[in-house]
Amino acid sequence: MTKWVYSFGGERTDGRADMKNLLGGKGANLAEMASLGLPVPPGFTITTEVCTYYYDNESSYPGELGDQVNEALAILERAMDAKFGDPENPLLLSVRSGARISMPGMMDTVLNLGLNEKTIQGLINRTNNPRFAWDSYRRFVQMYGDVVLGVPHHDFEDIIDTYKREHGISLDTEVPAEAWQQMVGEFKELVEKATGKPFPDDPMEQLWGGIGAVFGSWMIPRAVTYRRINEIPGNWGTAVNVQSMVFGNMGQDSATGVAFTRDPATGENYFYGEYLVDAQGEDVVAGIRTPQSLTKYAREKEGGDLPSMEEVMPEVFGELDGVRHTLENHFRDVQDLEFTVQDKKLYILQTRTGKRTTQAALKIAVDMEKEGLITKEEALLRVDPKGLDQLLHPTLDPDAHKTILAKGLPASPGAANGRVTFTADDAEAQAANGPVILCRQETSPEDIHGMHAAKGILTSRGGMTSHAAVVARGMGTPCVAGAGDLFIDTKSKVMRVGEYEIHEGDSITIDGSTGEVIFGEVPTIQPVLSGDFETLMAWADEVRRMKVRANAETPTDAQTARDFGAQGIGLCRTEHMFFDPDRIQRVREMIFASEETARRAALAHLLPEQRKDFKELFTIMQGLPVTIRLLDPPLHEFLPHEEADVEEFAKTAGIEPAHVHRRLGELHEFNPMLGHRGCRLGITYPEIYEMQAEAIFEAAVDVAEESGESVIPEVMIPLIATRKELSILRKLVEKTAERVFENRGRKLDYMIGTMIELPRAALCADDVANDADFYSFGTNDLTQTTLGMSRDDAGMFLKAYVEQGIFETDPFAALDQTGVGQLIEIAFRKGRSVKPDLKLGICGEHGGDPSSIGFCERTGLDYVSCSPYRVPIARLASAQAVVRLKD
Amino acid sequence: MTKWVYSFGGERTDGRADMKNLLGGKGANLAEMASLGLPVPPGFTITTEVCTYYYDNESSYPGELGDQVNEALAILERAMDAKFGDPENPLLLSVRSGARISMPGMMDTVLNLGLNEKTIQGLINRTNNPRFAWDSYRRFVQMYGDVVLGVPHHDFEDIIDTYKREHGISLDTEVPAEAWQQMVGEFKELVEKATGKPFPDDPMEQLWGGIGAVFGSWMIPRAVTYRRINEIPGNWGTAVNVQSMVFGNMGQDSATGVAFTRDPATGENYFYGEYLVDAQGEDVVAGIRTPQSLTKYAREKEGGDLPSMEEVMPEVFGELDGVRHTLENHFRDVQDLEFTVQDKKLYILQTRTGKRTTQAALKIAVDMEKEGLITKEEALLRVDPKGLDQLLHPTLDPDAHKTILAKGLPASPGAANGRVTFTADDAEAQAANGPVILCRQETSPEDIHGMHAAKGILTSRGGMTSHAAVVARGMGTPCVAGAGDLFIDTKSKVMRVGEYEIHEGDSITIDGSTGEVIFGEVPTIQPVLSGDFETLMAWADEVRRMKVRANAETPTDAQTARDFGAQGIGLCRTEHMFFDPDRIQRVREMIFASEETARRAALAHLLPEQRKDFKELFTIMQGLPVTIRLLDPPLHEFLPHEEADVEEFAKTAGIEPAHVHRRLGELHEFNPMLGHRGCRLGITYPEIYEMQAEAIFEAAVDVAEESGESVIPEVMIPLIATRKELSILRKLVEKTAERVFENRGRKLDYMIGTMIELPRAALCADDVANDADFYSFGTNDLTQTTLGMSRDDAGMFLKAYVEQGIFETDPFAALDQTGVGQLIEIAFRKGRSVKPDLKLGICGEHGGDPSSIGFCERTGLDYVSCSPYRVPIARLASAQAVVRLKD
Repeated sequence: MTKWVYSFGGERTDGRADMKNLLGGKGANLAEMASLGLPVPPGFTITTEVCTYYYDNESSYPGELGDQVNEALAILERAMDAKFGDPENPLLLSVRSGARISMPGMMDTVLNLGLNEKTIQGLINRTNNPRFAWDSYRRFVQMYGDVVLGVPHHDFEDIIDTYKREHGISLDTEVPAEAWQQMVGEFKELVEKATGKPFPDDPMEQLWGGIGAVFGSWMIPRAVTYRRINEIPGNWGTAVNVQSMVFGNMGQDSATGVAFTRDPATGENYFYGEYLVDAQGEDVVAGIRTPQSLTKYAREKEGGDLPSMEEVMPEVFGELDGVRHTLENHFRDVQDLEFTVQDKKLYILQTRTGKRTTQAALKIAVDMEKEGLITKEEALLRVDPKGLDQLLHPTLDPDAHKTILAKGLPASPGAANGRVTFTADDAEAQAANGPVILCRQETSPEDIHGMHAAKGILTSRGGMTSHAAVVARGMGTPCVAGAGDLFIDTKSKVMRVGEYEIHEGDSITIDGSTGEVIFGEVPTIQPVLSGDFETLMAWADEVRRMKVRANAETPTDAQTARDFGAQGIGLCRTEHMFFDPDRIQRVREMIFASEETARRAALAHLLPEQRKDFKELFTIMQGLPVTIRLLDPPLHEFLPHEEADVEEFAKTAGIEPAHVHRRLGELHEFNPMLGHRGCRLGITYPEIYEMQAEAIFEAAVDVAEESGESVIPEVMIPLIATRKELSILRKLVEKTAERVFENRGRKLDYMIGTMIELPRAALCADDVANDADFYSFGTNDLTQTTLGMSRDDAGMFLKAYVEQGIFETDPFAALDQTGVGQLIEIAFRKGRSVKPDLKLGICGEHGGDPSSIGFCERTGLDYVSCSPYRVPIARLASAQAVVRLKD
Repeated sequence: MTKWVYSFGGERTDGRADMKNLLGGKGANLAEMASLGLPVPPGFTITTEVCTYYYDNESSYPGELGDQVNEALAILERAMDAKFGDPENPLLLSVRSGARISMPGMMDTVLNLGLNEKTIQGLINRTNNPRFAWDSYRRFVQMYGDVVLGVPHHDFEDIIDTYKREHGISLDTEVPAEAWQQMVGEFKELVEKATGKPFPDDPMEQLWGGIGAVFGSWMIPRAVTYRRINEIPGNWGTAVNVQSMVFGNMGQDSATGVAFTRDPATGENYFYGEYLVDAQGEDVVAGIRTPQSLTKYAREKEGGDLPSMEEVMPEVFGELDGVRHTLENHFRDVQDLEFTVQDKKLYILQTRTGKRTTQAALKIAVDMEKEGLITKEEALLRVDPKGLDQLLHPTLDPDAHKTILAKGLPASPGAANGRVTFTADDAEAQAANGPVILCRQETSPEDIHGMHAAKGILTSRGGMTSHAAVVARGMGTPCVAGAGDLFIDTKSKVMRVGEYEIHEGDSITIDGSTGEVIFGEVPTIQPVLSGDFETLMAWADEVRRMKVRANAETPTDAQTARDFGAQGIGLCRTEHMFFDPDRIQRVREMIFASEETARRAALAHLLPEQRKDFKELFTIMQGLPVTIRLLDPPLHEFLPHEEADVEEFAKTAGIEPAHVHRRLGELHEFNPMLGHRGCRLGITYPEIYEMQAEAIFEAAVDVAEESGESVIPEVMIPLIATRKELSILRKLVEKTAERVFENRGRKLDYMIGTMIELPRAALCADDVANDADFYSFGTNDLTQTTLGMSRDDAGMFLKAYVEQGIFETDPFAALDQTGVGQLIEIAFRKGRSVKPDLKLGICGEHGGDPSSIGFCERTGLDYVSCSPYRVPIARLASAQAVVRLKD
């Protein structure tokens, strides 16, 4: 028989801390604390499997559940020497949700379950405190009515407010017992009117109502959204914790509080927390009364005037401080705990791993390693790699007021504010007068100069791997992408959202770490890196197996990448070098040339420019490998599209605008992503790739001649679908290399490989490997083709897909390991079967995503490559993946 | 040691007929005839492997080749009792190419190799016929100069013409020996002047020159193009046949001719052919002299006045007629042979399987089966399924003159002529006044009415599975797609190609079987089906295992499909039902509705229309399964795009044109193929799929009520990438079915399945199968995503890809078995592993392609589905696949 219910704290404790998947975080830790002998109010946990069962079986429970709950309840009654529903000596219960991971948005708590018109008398008799009892009762009806029965919270508050107004009182504490008693009646009437049914008086009905409400809250939109944002699978489910009540509001010897074993904001090692005398837990968070510090140190540090718990109730505090050390030593991590003091007796209601800022996480991890509490490897696991973004980019002042206009995708981290501009030219022109935010439906390579000039980039279309997102991440510029609620009208230079109209020159703020688009100028805070960062990074480098490279093409990017510890360049996109205003004219001339000779003439002008680019890059990256991808985008991306640009180009090039339009028409593609691009350009216009190869090898020889050391160029042919494409182009590159080496009288090592970014290439990776020295998984395009999903168009349905649980996360942000992952594994296996020393890496955006990096480590790739600002993330995530694999 | 050279006809014969891959068709059959004891001039064959070696090793030969040729030459000299290059008794040779498959465009023949100023004397002495000898010599220099040394043929003819003009003679036969002798000298001077080198006199140099020319001709553009069109892989290579010369031009007892063992045009069983007395082979084909019939029967049948060979040389004819029967009985197929009579002695120079028209192929196959020569299964293999198109569609009058403007893809078979129109509306309006051809850059669903009205469809963009191609094949309308040389200017209503300007109203002809676009009106011939067709189809149905269904959505298509023997509908594209002018307005209203209720209101108007469509279809297809695909294309395909249409729609719908433009902007997609379409519409707008499901089940119940028998609806959800999508939509369809069945008090069998058209669905086919009753491989989209290649844009590079041997054939026409095929096999295996009775079919355009059908049979699919006019092709190809698998 399945065990659906686990008792703790009474005559037996069934659970353990490592049973979080089954018991939820709260339930598992309550059991653990009970086993440690800590003072936990006894109770029982209904497992997460019941939740899963509930959703798989049309909101019904397993048959055995009722009996198991009754049995656990009996144990509880024996432990507390009271009876649930007993008018004389009533046992009161709390019901709380408890998923594996603490989740705001879920039903939190119903307290005082078991109270009704009969048991209230028992409570009055036992406490000899009618006001406390009636206050507890009305709190119960109010809470239960709200969270279980769905009667709006403020309807209850209205009744209280009316009473207070009529009686001229302002604080709840001034409300007398009789008034609470009367309001219990009014609350019940309110519930009956709102729900059409009387408020349940039967304690067992109350209990099952509470349990059902917890399970029901698992699927409310706020919880679903939270899971989506935090990448928590919907099928984990929540547990339900039923616990005997203890009361922090039974007078001056009672209290309640929350505490962290260290400061969760800075990581400093002192007992951090708040408490209130004569209060229940909800009062601490409600913000009506000012909570007091736990310790004298904290009070002085914060300059508070209210006495600390250490000063007010030194004995109980001493006990609590002991619990602090017991818990931290036992769990070997910072704990976030809740406690209640009932008549001088301390109860620990909950403990869990304390959430912390990345800054705190770093300090705590490094400190604890030094304290000998954890190992280096454990320390590495204590910092969320994604959080490092906070340390590398400006953040919003958390105290500032924010009017959020819209939410898009957190496409490139960091916060920025500035004046709105709608074109790249405007952004460039106006950047001289102060920071600007470039707002576009979607950016294209033509916008690069404006993107460079802007402090932040905002788009209304496109996903996590759209052009805007990829380029912004590369430049370290904050970007919010695909904010679909915005309607950006570039012609009229206005942006509409809801009732707002934002015109050119108006100020906005974007937070590329959260995706928020905010009205007006919100102050930002510049990041500071502590020594702990370098310490942890050094540990990561000791542990990790995979190399970390960067995707970079400009000298600035390359320098940033090296500064962040990149071990080479994994993707240099050469097309970005073609958009320079001086060069684009030549590129366009080449596209308009109808014959090879004319194309070669135009390319001859581009060759020295391209060589110069490579030389700069190679000089920075000396001694390291640099993977250079030959031209990838379709040619029409280089052509002018706006009428004015068309006319200007036609004039400069001395051709008819009609001819330009004709060529635009010829080159137009229905699905450019699947069009005439990548190696298909190399096959049809070999002279382009030949020029690029020549520039690469000449630059490498130049650098080698000047410094005696060069990079190892890895020439990467994009969009290979068949071996034959690669063998044709491999020959072209080899011939060019030989020619350059012969002319220059110097030979260099180099490699030729391909991106694996089409399913066919992955499926035929054994054949393709015959002509490849390396494979780099281009998981952006591989995701697009495997899922048949355009990253620029997925915004239309991706949200619905995540909300309905079709995708657990955006597959362009975190690798779809089930689908795309299969192709990577196939390509890995087949490629290595033919060529055991085939070098394998990833250069898609997933190369900077920790979960995807974990997949790469498990698969056995040689390196990951990501945008320069993600290099530290990748270093840490790679190390974590190694540590996790050992378990 | 590799054997590179195979002797035949002399003291030994090394080859056999089944060694065609190695020896080429000609060489293998010469060996076979030699072994049969037929009079073959002895010789030897240099294998196709030498050709492959030659191209793999920069035009060099295997080291052992020289010795092996010398050895074979020695055998030949012994057999002929003559010596190559011997002035007294010279052996003369012919050199011919011989690939596996006869290939025009390749170097055909060089005759009389071995002649020079010395050996000519031997020939004169031996034949005692100086005129014959010098004529042979000048022919040799002329041929060798032309085909081996590349001196233009007409430069030699100019010399002959000058002589004839100067001497007032008109026939070659009137030129005396001395004149030929003089011209040999002039020819040699011409060669030396043109090539800068003297004409080679050394016989061995001549021989190696001839061999090299054959190998060289394998890669000349005409041969490459022919292989591309005929889907012959470039790596097959050609063999070279070196054979001792025999002479049909040694007087009145000599002759030469070509023959078919049956009439290759009609299939009639009589000895068909032509011969000429005192001539060499080239004279028969040159057309200068009128060739004569072989038999009296043929002469009388054709009404010729020149006597037949049967009458002129009855003895040799008798011998030849014996050879005819020997060969047909031995090869068990029609033979195409060449013969020469030298001084009353018959020589067979070549035999090969006779090419024939499809009509002849049908008759010959059925006749031979009746004659007991072949089995039914062999008869099935004798007809090329693709050829059946000729029997089902009009063809061009082969005798008509054609001015070819351009060549596109043969997208939908049949020939049509008519006046040019450039818009669907014009096509519809002008069709009343006679046939029209609709010319578009590319068609879209908005053009359907014009496509229905047109006799033929021509596009300048798009591939074999573009919208135009798919729809045209479905309607049985001839279509040439992607004729990239055409520039179609829809605005100005003019089409330009080269120097031609075709205006609206001008006549053109298109041949959808060849892809030709022809100036003016070329007469067409209507097809007639013989009884042999039905006989062969019946045999095919006996043999085949897979069912054949049709892709059809209109009653006309469905009826055509049933008439052609379809066993159900494999793909009914419901969106085609939305483009009816009465309905499109409702569809657009639905798209413009901002809320679900408004969408439902618009859908409520579409429901009865859609139900009516299904009812008609189901009535025609009673008793058979009908697979209905729910809405697939992105919504923007239904919106107006031209400004006039936008305004009209806005007016009718009572909304601002600006609003329409805004919505168009919102719905615009960068890559519609990978966008918000397929099941993604069902997930985001479930009410659309609900309406469609309701219409399907109501129509099915209606038909069942009225007739007692219905179809088995198979509801197909398109573009599934994950199981979850399918399970959500499956529930929606099931609920709808239950509701309809409950309302109508009648339950029907039905199935719910999905298209496998994304790599991810194939890779996860085990998981997806849990929610699917059937899989239908949508190989159009699966090819697009697996190869990352848009069918509408591939035209830009596909030709180069086929020419450079990257693709052997257009992957949209014939399934890419290596790449896409792997995914089909994976999906088959994984799907069946979870659900052993999972029904599996294919409904992409490949379902009508014989080679792809072969793959489907090998994989084990349950059915193929194709456009109605391809159903007979699929029936035959499926049967052939079964027969081939038995071998």
